[in-house]
Amino acid sequence: MSYNTFGREFRFTTWGESHGPALGATVDGVPPGVPLDEGFIQKFLDRRRPGTSKHTTQRKEADRVRILSGLFEGRTTGTPIQLMIDNTDQRSKDYGEIASSFRPGHADITYHLKYGLRDYRGGGRSSARETAARVAAGGVAQAVLAHLLPGLKITGYMVQMGEMRLNRGNFDPNAIPDNPFFLPDATAVPAWSDYLDGVRKGQNSVGAAVEILIEGCPPGLGAPVYAKLDTDLAAAMMSINAVKGVEIGEGMGAASLTGTNNADEIRMGNDGPLFLSNHAGGILGGISTGQEIVLRFSVKPTSSITTPRRTINQRGEEIDLITKGRHDPCVGIRAVPVAEAMAACVILDHLLMDRAQTGGIRGEIG
Amino acid sequence: MSYNTFGREFRFTTWGESHGPALGATVDGVPPGVPLDEGFIQKFLDRRRPGTSKHTTQRKEADRVRILSGLFEGRTTGTPIQLMIDNTDQRSKDYGEIASSFRPGHADITYHLKYGLRDYRGGGRSSARETAARVAAGGVAQAVLAHLLPGLKITGYMVQMGEMRLNRGNFDPNAIPDNPFFLPDATAVPAWSDYLDGVRKGQNSVGAAVEILIEGCPPGLGAPVYAKLDTDLAAAMMSINAVKGVEIGEGMGAASLTGTNNADEIRMGNDGPLFLSNHAGGILGGISTGQEIVLRFSVKPTSSITTPRRTINQRGEEIDLITKGRHDPCVGIRAVPVAEAMAACVILDHLLMDRAQTGGIRGEIG
Amino acid sequence: MSYNTFGREFRFTTWGESHGPALGATVDGVPPGVPLDEGFIQKFLDRRRPGTSKHTTQRKEADRVRILSGLFEGRTTGTPIQLMIDNTDQRSKDYGEIASSFRPGHADITYHLKYGLRDYRGGGRSSARETAARVAAGGVAQAVLAHLLPGLKITGYMVQMGEMRLNRGNFDPNAIPDNPFFLPDATAVPAWSDYLDGVRKGQNSVGAAVEILIEGCPPGLGAPVYAKLDTDLAAAMMSINAVKGVEIGEGMGAASLTGTNNADEIRMGNDGPLFLSNHAGGILGGISTGQEIVLRFSVKPTSSITTPRRTINQRGEEIDLITKGRHDPCVGIRAVPVAEAMAACVILDHLLMDRAQTGGIRGEIG
Amino acid sequence: MSYNTFGREFRFTTWGESHGPALGATVDGVPPGVPLDEGFIQKFLDRRRPGTSKHTTQRKEADRVRILSGLFEGRTTGTPIQLMIDNTDQRSKDYGEIASSFRPGHADITYHLKYGLRDYRGGGRSSARETAARVAAGGVAQAVLAHLLPGLKITGYMVQMGEMRLNRGNFDPNAIPDNPFFLPDATAVPAWSDYLDGVRKGQNSVGAAVEILIEGCPPGLGAPVYAKLDTDLAAAMMSINAVKGVEIGEGMGAASLTGTNNADEIRMGNDGPLFLSNHAGGILGGISTGQEIVLRFSVKPTSSITTPRRTINQRGEEIDLITKGRHDPCVGIRAVPVAEAMAACVILDHLLMDRAQTGGIRGEIG
Repeated sequence: MSYNTFGREFRFTTWGESHGPALGATVDGVPPGVPLDEGFIQKFLDRRRPGTSKHTTQRKEADRVRILSGLFEGRTTGTPIQLMIDNTDQRSKDYGEIASSFRPGHADITYHLKYGLRDYRGGGRSSARETAARVAAGGVAQAVLAHLLPGLKITGYMVQMGEMRLNRGNFDPNAIPDNPFFLPDATAVPAWSDYLDGVRKGQNSVGAAVEILIEGCPPGLGAPVYAKLDTDLAAAMMSINAVKGVEIGEGMGAASLTGTNNADEIRMGNDGPLFLSNHAGGILGGISTGQEIVLRFSVKPTSSITTPRRTINQRGEEIDLITKGRHDPCVGIRAVPVAEAMAACVILDHLLMDRAQTGGIRGEIG
Repeated sequence: MSYNTFGREFRFTTWGESHGPALGATVDGVPPGVPLDEGFIQKFLDRRRPGTSKHTTQRKEADRVRILSGLFEGRTTGTPIQLMIDNTDQRSKDYGEIASSFRPGHADITYHLKYGLRDYRGGGRSSARETAARVAAGGVAQAVLAHLLPGLKITGYMVQMGEMRLNRGNFDPNAIPDNPFFLPDATAVPAWSDYLDGVRKGQNSVGAAVEILIEGCPPGLGAPVYAKLDTDLAAAMMSINAVKGVEIGEGMGAASLTGTNNADEIRMGNDGPLFLSNHAGGILGGISTGQEIVLRFSVKPTSSITTPRRTINQRGEEIDLITKGRHDPCVGIRAVPVAEAMAACVILDHLLMDRAQTGGIRGEIG
Repeated sequence: MSYNTFGREFRFTTWGESHGPALGATVDGVPPGVPLDEGFIQKFLDRRRPGTSKHTTQRKEADRVRILSGLFEGRTTGTPIQLMIDNTDQRSKDYGEIASSFRPGHADITYHLKYGLRDYRGGGRSSARETAARVAAGGVAQAVLAHLLPGLKITGYMVQMGEMRLNRGNFDPNAIPDNPFFLPDATAVPAWSDYLDGVRKGQNSVGAAVEILIEGCPPGLGAPVYAKLDTDLAAAMMSINAVKGVEIGEGMGAASLTGTNNADEIRMGNDGPLFLSNHAGGILGGISTGQEIVLRFSVKPTSSITTPRRTINQRGEEIDLITKGRHDPCVGIRAVPVAEAMAACVILDHLLMDRAQTGGIRGEIG
Repeated sequence: MSYNTFGREFRFTTWGESHGPALGATVDGVPPGVPLDEGFIQKFLDRRRPGTSKHTTQRKEADRVRILSGLFEGRTTGTPIQLMIDNTDQRSKDYGEIASSFRPGHADITYHLKYGLRDYRGGGRSSARETAARVAAGGVAQAVLAHLLPGLKITGYMVQMGEMRLNRGNFDPNAIPDNPFFLPDATAVPAWSDYLDGVRKGQNSVGAAVEILIEGCPPGLGAPVYAKLDTDLAAAMMSINAVKGVEIGEGMGAASLTGTNNADEIRMGNDGPLFLSNHAGGILGGISTGQEIVLRFSVKPTSSITTPRRTINQRGEEIDLITKGRHDPCVGIRAVPVAEAMAACVILDHLLMDRAQTGGIRGEIG
């Protein structure tokens, strides 16, 4: 049983606190012979990096990843890969005043209750900074997937930020990399930007919803009944800081549907089954159908806001607290590359699981 | 890595197919000395049992559980508990015609693609009949929880069935056991009943949403960062057949909130922290706060309907298919006791995990 | 973490007590499409079955195995296989007098200390009867290996029983099935038989050493550094009741060797590397070399003897105890098929692990 | 499933190659609140450190451990502890000539066969240098044990080195720290030293046997039936480089014993059961009895010797190979602190496992 380890075949253990000297991921179960270098992983980290726009925290972290093991002459050797990122901009004094206070909506109080002590600097282990290690591990997964499943593509994007919602009629994946919201609609960027400016200036924060689209996933991934592909994807998303809900396909909306309109009917295409719709989100009985996999999750508003909130301290005194420091007004934004990384890890994990049990054989149709 | 095993410390492996001779659960990691008998588990199975109202499948299964090991003179011994339920009403002929066809919305096609062969009778392993074994395992968990955490109470109920939604102003937990919908509002039962009659007579089915309320859970359960309590609860719910979305606290609605209205402010109560609201659903940073834990999930409409749907068969021929057999018009109903069972298993699992790491120590406040 | 589960990819959980209604194994991770039936497994159980010669316990158990799940039309489906064996000859009254006494050399006292209560009938869970479930699970592994690695052959035999030692000059594997000692030397059987008669008549018991020879294992199995093939084989053997030592290749004798005489030099054979000796026992760095794998283990003398021994009871009183009941004078004999079963499970487990990580690719030489 | 992870509750994942920039261990499952600092761990590393006498490799490694996470103000926080040791004296040129040759007795050939490529420098991942990370992880385990089980004491010492054997009549644990052989007999040190000088000068190496004595282990540790305490200890020892055999209590010698002389009879002592002998080595049915736990293992002679041996290279050519570099003439010596570390990890792991399942309750006697 592992608390800080994710995955079954492709496993990574993240370590490190927000304001410790470094953080990282120990990645095990990596297939051998896969081309990999630090630059490949760095690309993914750069997408998550703080301080790149006014819409994210102004903490300046280079987030340079180093590979300390498991690589030889540019290829993975099948041994553990240690990924390490130094913490460089640790302004711990920002956090001195919360050393003995519990920020509402934060894990300060639950860590204190559970462990009796906690590294309070920047939230310590409960900080979203831990997700940098996930993105690095996800980079390794992406390298392996590029090697084993070259057609696979994982794309994350925001579909909601408070009152702002993606107009699906404008959906344009090419727009995603060119704006600070990972928004697949260039025309909406100014409005989203103005909206978030207003939230930040109002000393407030706002929630978000993110969608992950997985294209090119072959049928047959998913292990019934307690390691279903949707179960593992949902767990991966729920493990990300501040996530409060996860949906596959129709998601919570499935409660409103009837059997006749929810059925994804099937016809015969040129190279196999052709589904006429995708209410299921690409997964049936926990196993991928070969369709696009579609999942969504919500992220609660950043709990660290400069509007005073009522709380208590460790001595049991009632206080009002303003959370200073450098915080994202919408943590949902930077959750996008984190979720892509987690999705990559889940897909790879299941690809390897499937190799173990079935050897990759597939039932024929026709 | 376990495909058919759930849990870390308290683990159960379910086995059996819909139309095999029997099914069951092998439960391991059970603490010793806990009073247990078949009758205690049977109570839970009876709540899930098919054929008890016109609103569930007419398959008649006694669902009698037998305990084959791990018990001595009325107490658990700490050794594996084998729970076995004989299948008695297996009308396999109902399923002969789908031996080589793929029912839309079912796992027929994905099992075929993954494994190359499948026990097609009643969906084989992908049948919701597997959940009987979960409920039996959940009964063991409930017995252990009654022993170790006597104040804990887990209550499941429907909050939506297609167009029908629970009026929260009428919420009355005492009503739940007295109607076939596990509905906490006796006044709404006739309307829900009429609605579902209409659905069934229309040869259709309908989705549902279920809420699980966990009262009396102590603070400190949950293991950061990849075995968070909410992660594990979400995974548990998503592993149930037909579930498409899971929410903790505000759930998907968190995307619409701001930081000021989402913060659960804290005051000092007589015996510890007092939270003024519960947007978080009782979990912060993956660890229980001591508040009520609130989660919801959606269940898609039963895919087996008698309205013809377009599909293909194993020979790649396009056909129209009517799914005969005895099916629930709303599988969400019977998901209620299943979800309670899964929640019980997760809470117990985390209680034991916490005993291992912290020995049950708790940080003090005040 | 699993206490009653063995294996990583190919996993089985055994359940059941010596004098409960039944015992069995829940087998998960089985590849689909493998031909299997009860008769195939029964063959292995019959080799371990008690009561077949005067040299083993006179308890008469049919040890009929039933397959309750995971099989369809004669092939595995990839879902869990439940193997169940009814206990039929439970003479619990034999054990009444030890309900509150601790038999020396038995787990009575440690189970009591750990769990506070125990099923004392026949040793309950600590009885060697649990190994029937292992042999059944091993039968499933053997079926899968016959399918995936048809050249593999696992042979167990006794090499020592008290003062009697195998004369390796007479080694004849064909003799093994034809004598009650699994002895690869027909000429020695009368002497071994007389010796064990003497032990039994002397109200005594005797230890044994067993060797397992694995032929046809391909190179490349074994997962460094904590799931080495020798580590897993050693753990498998040490988990068998009464085993006190395990050796790979030279074993404990390696302490007396020098580097020049221990080196297994290599030449080039017609189809790959040719090792000139096998001091290593077929495993280097935890990975199989492609040579024969050779391991040995010792089994302590049966602790249940009719010669009175000094002990205490649960009230803390000092007593003299004679262990009645029907016991093997040399439990090492029946350990042979059990060890073969465990070895089969380990090899299959590693074959599947290797498929997951490397996909079965192999480095070339020449 | 973890290849590079050891343990169930207290888990560590080692990473790093012999000649990479660094190596280390990621330790998870650590209880919170335990006093710990780098100096405490360093003590253990210093006992294993190479280059401290003429009898070990002349590679000079400072083996300075750094703690990068999981510690706050001198106490563990319950989050992962990253232990990192920089490699400083990497003379990779020593290994250039074996880049494409397979050293007999080494894992060169099996890593090549399994993975298709390998970091050949110093054996890469298969190097005994990996054991430095184990010793560091063991230091964390020792700190936790000192906190939770203050009476526990784990002592390792050599009992054999080739022709030299410990005279048990001279057994003196106080002598162990004062000689380069971890030998509990000061009078024998000169003879052992001369003997090993002769071996080294003869361009040879020699095997060894090591004994581990665990005093102060409470009864009740061990989890039947596949995580028995002896099973886990045996697996821990077998996972150490070059180990070929493991014994508990009487070990392989149990094969020669009879039931009457093997029984550890029991009397009632002042504070509980008093065993009159310890043939079992302190473990019955896989659970500790409260007696001393005694285990032994053998270590094969160092395969790297300067006497030429016949082998092949990657092109399939037959060659004669002299292994240069800086090697221990008896790797068994440095296995002593490694084995102590592994034993500490196993005992702690089982202590935490037992807390999870039984909550630490113990059955009473008298």
